[in-house]
Amino acid sequence: MSAAIELFDEQGYEAATVAEIAERAGLTKRTFFRYYSDKREVLFNGSQELQRLWLEGLAAAPAEASPLAVVTAGLDPVAEMFTERHPFARIRAQIIEANPELQERELIKLQSLAVAIKGALVQRGVSVNAAILAAQAGVTVFQVAFAHWVQQNDPTALGRLMDESLEELRSVTAGY
Amino acid sequence: MSAAIELFDEQGYEAATVAEIAERAGLTKRTFFRYYSDKREVLFNGSQELQRLWLEGLAAAPAEASPLAVVTAGLDPVAEMFTERHPFARIRAQIIEANPELQERELIKLQSLAVAIKGALVQRGVSVNAAILAAQAGVTVFQVAFAHWVQQNDPTALGRLMDESLEELRSVTAGY
Repeated sequence: MSAAIELFDEQGYEAATVAEIAERAGLTKRTFFRYYSDKREVLFNGSQELQRLWLEGLAAAPAEASPLAVVTAGLDPVAEMFTERHPFARIRAQIIEANPELQERELIKLQSLAVAIKGALVQRGVSVNAAILAAQAGVTVFQVAFAHWVQQNDPTALGRLMDESLEELRSVTAGY
Repeated sequence: MSAAIELFDEQGYEAATVAEIAERAGLTKRTFFRYYSDKREVLFNGSQELQRLWLEGLAAAPAEASPLAVVTAGLDPVAEMFTERHPFARIRAQIIEANPELQERELIKLQSLAVAIKGALVQRGVSVNAAILAAQAGVTVFQVAFAHWVQQNDPTALGRLMDESLEELRSVTAGY
């Protein structure tokens, strides 16, 4: 829903009303509420797609892959999904940065993602503890890379930044 | 505030009023609100102490320790703090388990803890990325161990469970 993000960018997230967002997107207010429970949801619209792609990538990992390799198998389709969303993601990151309530919501969405990834690992036969640790590590790797990606100018950089973040994780834990 | 937890255990968290909690603890309602912003805060009373002890332990780690070793240096004082809180922690865990809003609050408190640990690492000269990854890994290690600790009967087991969880993290990331 990039029309809404344009509007937020022009007049601020707080000031934009649902009626204005709907109008900009060519929707009636009623139709808007069929898709979004509230204004905030416009910003978290991508989280279902993110989870779907991540779990699809994860499901395609070979049976013998380690838990963390299974988790990170989901990152390639995720990087691809976000490439075209870079302008949206940058504005969105600024809006969230400025609003503690939205930061909490972002956090909770990422934790639901970690829980879903954990569930998929357990279904593959990974122990619960290893699944929690690997899922959380994968989501943190994503978060770190994503935060860099929205601050730089190359829309295609997310995959490389996630590889770097994963490498950093390995060195942080191996260095112990 | 174990008097409040006893009350929650007897009549349920939802049903207990602030007036009843204050009475049980021998406080006036007014005094209660000097210490706690609301009823929920009774359950999250330990989070400041947890953070303080963790950061103290972390500060005592040798300068040459790796980021994850610095983070986990905070776990010994934390394990000690919780030993005597085991009965409280078990009831608390059941209350939180049954209430999604409290689960979100727990999550946000743990994330603030991760942010504080990250900050302490950065102050020690660790790069921001390594600091985020190590802090988050440490908090997840703690979470996994804590969840086991409240489900078993030995109040002194937290330290051992955290060691096991850390070992599991190392194997999960090294196995990649």
